[in-house]
Amino acid sequence: MSGKSLKLAIIGGGSSYTPELIEGVIKRADRLPVREIHLVDVEHGQEKLDIILALSQRMVEKAGVDIAIKASLDRKAAIKDADFVMTQFRVGGLQARANDERIPLKYDVIGQETTGPGGFAKALRTIPVILDICKDIEALAPNAWMLNFTNPAGLVTEAVNKHTNVKTIGLCNVPVSMKMMISEMMDCQPDELSLECAGLNHLLWAHRAWLNGEDITAQVLEKVGDGANYSMKNIHEEPWDPAFLRALQAIPCPYHRYFYQTDAMLAEEKETAAHGGTRAEQVMVTEKSLFELYKDVNLKDKPEELEQRGGAYYSDASLNLVDAIYNNQNSLHVVNVPNNGAIPSLPDDAVIECTSVVGSWGAKPISFGKLSPAVIGLIQQVKAYEILTVEAAVYGDYDKSLMALTNNPLVPDITRAKAILDDILKTNYDYLPQFSAQG
Amino acid sequence: MSGKSLKLAIIGGGSSYTPELIEGVIKRADRLPVREIHLVDVEHGQEKLDIILALSQRMVEKAGVDIAIKASLDRKAAIKDADFVMTQFRVGGLQARANDERIPLKYDVIGQETTGPGGFAKALRTIPVILDICKDIEALAPNAWMLNFTNPAGLVTEAVNKHTNVKTIGLCNVPVSMKMMISEMMDCQPDELSLECAGLNHLLWAHRAWLNGEDITAQVLEKVGDGANYSMKNIHEEPWDPAFLRALQAIPCPYHRYFYQTDAMLAEEKETAAHGGTRAEQVMVTEKSLFELYKDVNLKDKPEELEQRGGAYYSDASLNLVDAIYNNQNSLHVVNVPNNGAIPSLPDDAVIECTSVVGSWGAKPISFGKLSPAVIGLIQQVKAYEILTVEAAVYGDYDKSLMALTNNPLVPDITRAKAILDDILKTNYDYLPQFSAQG
Amino acid sequence: MSGKSLKLAIIGGGSSYTPELIEGVIKRADRLPVREIHLVDVEHGQEKLDIILALSQRMVEKAGVDIAIKASLDRKAAIKDADFVMTQFRVGGLQARANDERIPLKYDVIGQETTGPGGFAKALRTIPVILDICKDIEALAPNAWMLNFTNPAGLVTEAVNKHTNVKTIGLCNVPVSMKMMISEMMDCQPDELSLECAGLNHLLWAHRAWLNGEDITAQVLEKVGDGANYSMKNIHEEPWDPAFLRALQAIPCPYHRYFYQTDAMLAEEKETAAHGGTRAEQVMVTEKSLFELYKDVNLKDKPEELEQRGGAYYSDASLNLVDAIYNNQNSLHVVNVPNNGAIPSLPDDAVIECTSVVGSWGAKPISFGKLSPAVIGLIQQVKAYEILTVEAAVYGDYDKSLMALTNNPLVPDITRAKAILDDILKTNYDYLPQFSAQG
Amino acid sequence: MSGKSLKLAIIGGGSSYTPELIEGVIKRADRLPVREIHLVDVEHGQEKLDIILALSQRMVEKAGVDIAIKASLDRKAAIKDADFVMTQFRVGGLQARANDERIPLKYDVIGQETTGPGGFAKALRTIPVILDICKDIEALAPNAWMLNFTNPAGLVTEAVNKHTNVKTIGLCNVPVSMKMMISEMMDCQPDELSLECAGLNHLLWAHRAWLNGEDITAQVLEKVGDGANYSMKNIHEEPWDPAFLRALQAIPCPYHRYFYQTDAMLAEEKETAAHGGTRAEQVMVTEKSLFELYKDVNLKDKPEELEQRGGAYYSDASLNLVDAIYNNQNSLHVVNVPNNGAIPSLPDDAVIECTSVVGSWGAKPISFGKLSPAVIGLIQQVKAYEILTVEAAVYGDYDKSLMALTNNPLVPDITRAKAILDDILKTNYDYLPQFSAQG
Repeated sequence: MSGKSLKLAIIGGGSSYTPELIEGVIKRADRLPVREIHLVDVEHGQEKLDIILALSQRMVEKAGVDIAIKASLDRKAAIKDADFVMTQFRVGGLQARANDERIPLKYDVIGQETTGPGGFAKALRTIPVILDICKDIEALAPNAWMLNFTNPAGLVTEAVNKHTNVKTIGLCNVPVSMKMMISEMMDCQPDELSLECAGLNHLLWAHRAWLNGEDITAQVLEKVGDGANYSMKNIHEEPWDPAFLRALQAIPCPYHRYFYQTDAMLAEEKETAAHGGTRAEQVMVTEKSLFELYKDVNLKDKPEELEQRGGAYYSDASLNLVDAIYNNQNSLHVVNVPNNGAIPSLPDDAVIECTSVVGSWGAKPISFGKLSPAVIGLIQQVKAYEILTVEAAVYGDYDKSLMALTNNPLVPDITRAKAILDDILKTNYDYLPQFSAQG
Repeated sequence: MSGKSLKLAIIGGGSSYTPELIEGVIKRADRLPVREIHLVDVEHGQEKLDIILALSQRMVEKAGVDIAIKASLDRKAAIKDADFVMTQFRVGGLQARANDERIPLKYDVIGQETTGPGGFAKALRTIPVILDICKDIEALAPNAWMLNFTNPAGLVTEAVNKHTNVKTIGLCNVPVSMKMMISEMMDCQPDELSLECAGLNHLLWAHRAWLNGEDITAQVLEKVGDGANYSMKNIHEEPWDPAFLRALQAIPCPYHRYFYQTDAMLAEEKETAAHGGTRAEQVMVTEKSLFELYKDVNLKDKPEELEQRGGAYYSDASLNLVDAIYNNQNSLHVVNVPNNGAIPSLPDDAVIECTSVVGSWGAKPISFGKLSPAVIGLIQQVKAYEILTVEAAVYGDYDKSLMALTNNPLVPDITRAKAILDDILKTNYDYLPQFSAQG
Repeated sequence: MSGKSLKLAIIGGGSSYTPELIEGVIKRADRLPVREIHLVDVEHGQEKLDIILALSQRMVEKAGVDIAIKASLDRKAAIKDADFVMTQFRVGGLQARANDERIPLKYDVIGQETTGPGGFAKALRTIPVILDICKDIEALAPNAWMLNFTNPAGLVTEAVNKHTNVKTIGLCNVPVSMKMMISEMMDCQPDELSLECAGLNHLLWAHRAWLNGEDITAQVLEKVGDGANYSMKNIHEEPWDPAFLRALQAIPCPYHRYFYQTDAMLAEEKETAAHGGTRAEQVMVTEKSLFELYKDVNLKDKPEELEQRGGAYYSDASLNLVDAIYNNQNSLHVVNVPNNGAIPSLPDDAVIECTSVVGSWGAKPISFGKLSPAVIGLIQQVKAYEILTVEAAVYGDYDKSLMALTNNPLVPDITRAKAILDDILKTNYDYLPQFSAQG
Repeated sequence: MSGKSLKLAIIGGGSSYTPELIEGVIKRADRLPVREIHLVDVEHGQEKLDIILALSQRMVEKAGVDIAIKASLDRKAAIKDADFVMTQFRVGGLQARANDERIPLKYDVIGQETTGPGGFAKALRTIPVILDICKDIEALAPNAWMLNFTNPAGLVTEAVNKHTNVKTIGLCNVPVSMKMMISEMMDCQPDELSLECAGLNHLLWAHRAWLNGEDITAQVLEKVGDGANYSMKNIHEEPWDPAFLRALQAIPCPYHRYFYQTDAMLAEEKETAAHGGTRAEQVMVTEKSLFELYKDVNLKDKPEELEQRGGAYYSDASLNLVDAIYNNQNSLHVVNVPNNGAIPSLPDDAVIECTSVVGSWGAKPISFGKLSPAVIGLIQQVKAYEILTVEAAVYGDYDKSLMALTNNPLVPDITRAKAILDDILKTNYDYLPQFSAQG
């Protein structure tokens, strides 16, 4: 690929995150000859798209780089001949996310954007749309790489891998955040640190951490247990029990709090929902003020306030991937890829999140060997949920939906699974045509 | 083996179930030339053992069969040269079981003899004792088959397989009960029915049911959903949701209610514990009256009241196994055996419960192929719990114990896991020397 | 299935083996209510078919059983509503087999009906025809079981399993012959003997032999090494090296001589081909005299001379299968079935030959656990050859053909592989339309 | 590891290759702070060791780098506190290799240093010695990395991984040679080329070749078929059949000629052995003249003549590994490592040769997914041979030896296997104490 100039298509271009991506492209002008960025969004997002377009153009102009920024509602035009298609859209907007957070809480179950029933609902809404986008890519840009940041990233990537021919890598900012926080704890450069990461999206462990050829896993766990900073903007920072971490012998990701500290996280969610609003409801406020800022014609840089939004390192994570592919770096990234034996007891076509080598051949997972019984059961249980969810979302299948929620470890039993499912299907009726089509 | 006369050793011979075994041996006198039955128990059970010995001798005498019944506290004498060693003991007696049932309830968690934290506690107490018994078998009866009915049967059998050279098969009355109930539903003879059973002990599904070469799984599920009798004496018969069964596409075992209908089962357990007593506490009453009956010198048969006790088909299940091995029948039995690939994503040395061919070569599981995602995740999650529990029990390892409970799907989070674990270790202190030895 | 009367369709009904099948059906009249047997053959075989029909009718009449024997060239009529379809045809007749035997010899390579390049050629001719037959079964008798004896039985069964919906079991007389010979050596009843058989068709080992619960594998190997009768009519009885058998620790099948004693077997084949004729050429003579015998209107039984033909136990092997399925016996048979994990390192849809439980649900392989490195490599190598051969045969693919022969352990290198392949394709041109269609 | 100064121990330091290693260390002085190189050899090699020591010191002196070169017969002193132990010794010297080449030829079987019976004999001699060396490393330098170039590298590395605690990576110059030759064919920089290499040592395929994100496998195969340079100094360059390469769809390594073009290679070997001498016999001559050169006190650089010797890129391959580990580069190298699922159907502890990520955590193989049936059978067959060979070598087991040769695809049948084995054991009697110890 090296040598040719690049076109990026950004699906969901009206997102408040876009300026971060634009900034990332500008920063890498010497490594990545991007000549065109085409932002595309749905009709409902026209106003935001216009704001983002104008800001992006001001940013590019100030930087003095030769990049044409375009914006339109014409997805096909955006995708045509793109080299990279970046997907960061949200079907149903933040209101749908707020529903995802609130519905499970009614049943005393974790309500969260990407895990538990909330993530399930989001998958049902999102997967049909992404498959539709992939049809355009297959027709108009068959050699393009789709870098998917749309959540739930693992489920969406698995659906794309199983049901389309699009070359895709799923991406999340959790692994890079883990690496940054751990290197801060260990007072080392991120590059000096090597993490054996393997699991599923938002269910990722660093099974071993290495520094200078030394296994430092136990030291990291001790620091996390002692209260070292180890969370992310959008997750309540419930402290970890040191005895548990010592027994686990692997470094959990911040999202593991939902699985391991369910009681405390549920209590906190219910408290927040009652006062102040769920995470989506808080973000609505942040978003509003962000777009007010973005409108300012004097703003020609990514504003600092964007960092409050929660997507730390998203831009770096994604543009480092573009760099690795374009320049055939064969560097290590923790991404969502088909398993292919890397986690031996999962199917080959199951998408996992794993330390992978990324170059012009795409992303290839590393085999670290069998995972310990302390973690493998949860991975397998959640993967069963994911396999069923992808089938439910693609075929609009009620039975698979029920079995998916039954298998989700955050849903305590089938009575609640069914009640939550029925609530989700009713509330999201407009976004789930695949279910109505079933009769 | 065919042709030689047989000696049976029954560890836990003072159990109220023993008369059923004696009756079973008498019934099969023409197929199984049993010449000696040696009942053995611990000092604390001397009184019961005496009662059982006397009753057994009266039964044998009445039947006119030539079987010497012995009873002693000398385990080595019982095991020496035995052909079959049957284990049905209970470390800590019914009081320990009552604790297993009540401790988890304090934390709003299912309290049950064999599943959840109750089964975990029982495994911690039982596994060191069974390994000790196996040392005697290795030394004194190396060719004997140990038929283990001691619960949690899957965990105990896995411990024996991994840590001893004893030939063993784990046994449970759930599969035979499922077969009897399903053939009743379908109005057919049990022999006409073929069930593809695979899972773990007390977590067993019939993945497909066949009658006359026809797959009748859906019909069975409909009948179960319509309320056909489908439970066991010791499990509250919570009705099954027909929509769930249809989606599951496999016939769950009665114990699955704890996993799938957790809320209702927990509510019922709490209600029962508050009024009338837990299952163990009820059994204490039954046991007492059973032994009163047994004392009657005019009683020369297994009394009907024993059936209230809950172990339906235990005698048939175990003696049919003896028959299959002794007479090389190569008949089908659902037993606990090392996996050896029968459930592809589990380790080879994991013990599973599976339809198996049993003959003089022992029990060999049948491969039915990959299990559906609707069930495999739960099996893998529970197997992870089991692997960790066996290690915890053998080595007295606190960290493995905590990870075991963390992986048990009936335990909602690590805070409760730890609280329950500490309670179990404290309450069972006298029965868990392997933990104190750790320092 | 039990209770209903049966129709058998026999494809290749004009075979000299048919009287043995008829005899088998007559013998089992009390267990199998066969009411109709429809023999079908191709136009070229009309004369033989007429002879067989007449003989069969005389046999049935003499036995006084109520079975209608029909014969026709109308395959669809034969298959319609059949309960069992038995396939024993030979595409190209014995002349094609003689070619299969002679072509490889030209290149100093084993020339044999079912293994090596000869078996490969036979697979190319046979698989398209069997898939065609399966289309008729799918349309006209979708519930029928196809019992396939057509060689190469493993390859043909794999093709049917991968490319059709027909319920099928592949069958061979080698395993039953092994059992008979070993029980003769051990002076026991066949039923007392249990063999852990697993491998591929004509590449089958008994990994362990059991008698009365004792592992007698070493004793059997010693007897085979000492020269006990251990061969079959159609295989030259090259003696086995006792040291080799002891090292192998598994009982090979008679066909293993081609793989393990290649030099001696090749020398013998070349000698025989030069004087007396190849096996096919010898059979042509036997066949001719058999049909002369069959014509005799006074002949009303299977003549003893048929046993010289080489298919010992074929009738028993196949009708015992019919019995096991019809009467849901769940008895053990060594048959060709999809692997489904029984041999862990082979694909699930690879057809293996394995001790299996056969009942109304069909045949389910038993898991004996991992096979030893002494045998697993050869199985995997030959299975790779088989997978490629099925693809080559179905799609008429030259490249897959070349890779298939390259992977066959009897073909020393690619230069000879290619020369033999080109010779096979040219010689069999009329029987390989799938290859001409490619170009 | 970064930051600390390095000690290298070179076992077999008297090898004619050593000057290449010394040159490699000098070239990397800015990246690798090597302060001590300790050459060690056996008594028999004292003279060569002295010559190499003197030359190495002249080279270091001329380069002006601060490296202490030592040489001794004291292995323990060399290993003590080493950071890297490099093993390149040859048990029995070139004469033993000549025997390995000539013995099989007597039986019309490929006679080669590392594959076939020759490699087997070498493994029997070498494995006990390397395990002995590992005991020293475990005691005296437990954190050292052992980089093993001693052939047969895959077998030796598997023995070390299974039987010691030494951190080891096995290394060969074939993969780097393949990369250099392919990049020459494609007229690109080696760094631009990505190869998906997986197989076993000297049985390695590049399953896919990538250039600039494009799959160029077919193009490479065409060029190899057209006669592009694709061999190595020590392998006769038999041309490849283009039709075969197209069918294979993977790029074989030069050593594959022994497996795929056996007839031609055998003919060439016999011709060479008859006139001019086997490869070992030729090398004896080269070696002699090389050491004459090395003695020249005016020689202060690696002489060009060394390249004739055949070990192209050895120095680069090994020192790039040292660099990757020391500087935590996480760069891609094709090395011998435990499989851990990278090739799904092989055991986890089987050593494979695979594109791996190498950093301070060692070497981790990349999972490329299931290999095609065109190659997997041969890998599995040879791996079975290797597993048996390691057991035979470690335990001095005749039966395992016989089964190992039986499973080697270059050995046509068991009669020849046994004859060759007996010849090997007799000829190598002095070097195989583990076999005599068996009684």
